[in-house]
Amino acid sequence: MATYVLVHGAWHTGELFEEVAAPIRGAGHEVHLPTIAGNRPGDEKTIGLAPAIASIVDYLVSNDLSDVILLGHSYGGMIITGVADAVPERLRRLIYWNAFVPNDGECLNDMVPPHYVALFDAVSGQSSDNSVMLPYPIWREAFINDGDAALAQSSFDRLNPHPYATFTDPINLKTNPADMQVAKSYINATSDTALPQSLGWHPRLSEKLGLFRLVQTPGSHEMCFSDPAGLAEAIMAAGRD
Amino acid sequence: MATYVLVHGAWHTGELFEEVAAPIRGAGHEVHLPTIAGNRPGDEKTIGLAPAIASIVDYLVSNDLSDVILLGHSYGGMIITGVADAVPERLRRLIYWNAFVPNDGECLNDMVPPHYVALFDAVSGQSSDNSVMLPYPIWREAFINDGDAALAQSSFDRLNPHPYATFTDPINLKTNPADMQVAKSYINATSDTALPQSLGWHPRLSEKLGLFRLVQTPGSHEMCFSDPAGLAEAIMAAGRD
Amino acid sequence: MATYVLVHGAWHTGELFEEVAAPIRGAGHEVHLPTIAGNRPGDEKTIGLAPAIASIVDYLVSNDLSDVILLGHSYGGMIITGVADAVPERLRRLIYWNAFVPNDGECLNDMVPPHYVALFDAVSGQSSDNSVMLPYPIWREAFINDGDAALAQSSFDRLNPHPYATFTDPINLKTNPADMQVAKSYINATSDTALPQSLGWHPRLSEKLGLFRLVQTPGSHEMCFSDPAGLAEAIMAAGRD
Repeated sequence: MATYVLVHGAWHTGELFEEVAAPIRGAGHEVHLPTIAGNRPGDEKTIGLAPAIASIVDYLVSNDLSDVILLGHSYGGMIITGVADAVPERLRRLIYWNAFVPNDGECLNDMVPPHYVALFDAVSGQSSDNSVMLPYPIWREAFINDGDAALAQSSFDRLNPHPYATFTDPINLKTNPADMQVAKSYINATSDTALPQSLGWHPRLSEKLGLFRLVQTPGSHEMCFSDPAGLAEAIMAAGRD
Repeated sequence: MATYVLVHGAWHTGELFEEVAAPIRGAGHEVHLPTIAGNRPGDEKTIGLAPAIASIVDYLVSNDLSDVILLGHSYGGMIITGVADAVPERLRRLIYWNAFVPNDGECLNDMVPPHYVALFDAVSGQSSDNSVMLPYPIWREAFINDGDAALAQSSFDRLNPHPYATFTDPINLKTNPADMQVAKSYINATSDTALPQSLGWHPRLSEKLGLFRLVQTPGSHEMCFSDPAGLAEAIMAAGRD
Repeated sequence: MATYVLVHGAWHTGELFEEVAAPIRGAGHEVHLPTIAGNRPGDEKTIGLAPAIASIVDYLVSNDLSDVILLGHSYGGMIITGVADAVPERLRRLIYWNAFVPNDGECLNDMVPPHYVALFDAVSGQSSDNSVMLPYPIWREAFINDGDAALAQSSFDRLNPHPYATFTDPINLKTNPADMQVAKSYINATSDTALPQSLGWHPRLSEKLGLFRLVQTPGSHEMCFSDPAGLAEAIMAAGRD
């Protein structure tokens, strides 16, 4: 059986993946749900990308995890790319689930349409701590379009303000993802419009991985809430062997 | 419960949506199926786009409908865009189902590949009343590709010649769809080849809506015949809240 | 009932389609599974495209088959296009299943990304007979991404070295596919990454057919192994009437 470490996206925490982890654990695997520094209760929101990545490296090291299948969701793609660059010897496979795939020197905002960057700049500028939240209408229509209104609201209520510097800091990599020797998968939820599909996740970002295993699944950007069982199936298909 | 008004596409009438309406009514909603001026039995085929739009505005007003979820299919996207511009106060949400999304000054033919325009020009030119029909082979292969031959023929037999001026008249709008304040959804049937998918419905036309809720569903351009229950599910997902 | 002739892709043989043929036969149809010259046990691997096409023409003629629904998979698209050009009078419909669609003068390598051409050049150059094999990691990740590791390995073990000249020889056609009078379908497996989806099968190659019937199905490039029943359903939907 395998060891999965699932790394959440912006505004999320690890515990929001509990319903995804349950069926994976039910299939006999070990599943870890760390929360990235900056998204833990009480964390400073001024944290940048490097310490955010370091917090997941530390999690793997302090728990002495090896042969890990490491998944990143959305912003989590920045994190797992940095982790893979730092401790490749601990990893069996990377899984990007509708996630950003950076090359050396790129930041998350480099892969986002200009109207989102303008929105994030404005929202973070009005905060006292350079944090950013997603306006509810965007969450409801573009992120969790496959859920009903009650689920959209209850999941939104569980989000936390995100440290905006992690979107604007460029990543430092020794090796770009296409050249990493670790095995790679990309899960694409076919109704995900968190990025406009004209400028979407797959194949635009997925193909930055070089050789990778594609798993497509129906669903939105927030299948962790709207279809956790379907997401768990996709993860296990992406992660097997 | 909600009030749905479903506006058909070119060559269709409202009654062709009866099998779609049934499960929506079964879920407790009110469903209206008006036929656009120009497609009603006995209508002049020389009618243009403005009176076609006006006929659906009149339908909403004369039935005093409000808080309406207004769906348009294909050509019906021209109609509901015009209706939303005229009587926004009567609408809760627009749903485009593989439908044209015009900005001010655009006509339907502006969003269609040149070989279709050439075909429509030729067919309408040979008619006595500037009407256009779709050749059966195109209907069978590109419009109802998910149906069997018997369904393709029986549905084709229920179509009526379409007033071609509604394809060539530019629409007059005070507000373009992206700037309309009403909520918007786009339903995309993933095997719809009524427009070639290289120049397709989604995301090319859907993203003209600005913020919108995407619902993808398996099926062709003519799910009203080939999968009315599946279409009804998609409509209710697109229309909820 | 209809007569289906299923033409395999590179590295395959006809017998690898037995599990696909079974449900089609079960529905009452006649199914033939010829193996293209160059892929039969003992065949010279130096054979070019013209004799490969001729071997399937010969199969139709020697078995006196008519009103045939002729399917080609991948490289098999080169073959059925050539067959349709040679003996159109024997055909009812062409079905391309994630297959190459050549115009006159094109070779398969003209439709493949440069890094695959470079790989094939290198591998064939190291062979003694100008044959090419696919490295297992590419097979596992990009061709049979929807199968488990055991199926990936067992199916790989049944492949045979492919005559590389059939990828580099241009095809000679009197009529390009878009102008052929025979009916045409294209089956697209939506998780097929044998070609990168940014440069994919559909709609880039499918639309070279002109008017065609699209059938989309979940699955990888190797549904003949990973979901033969699903593939058989798609073939019968593509081939009916």
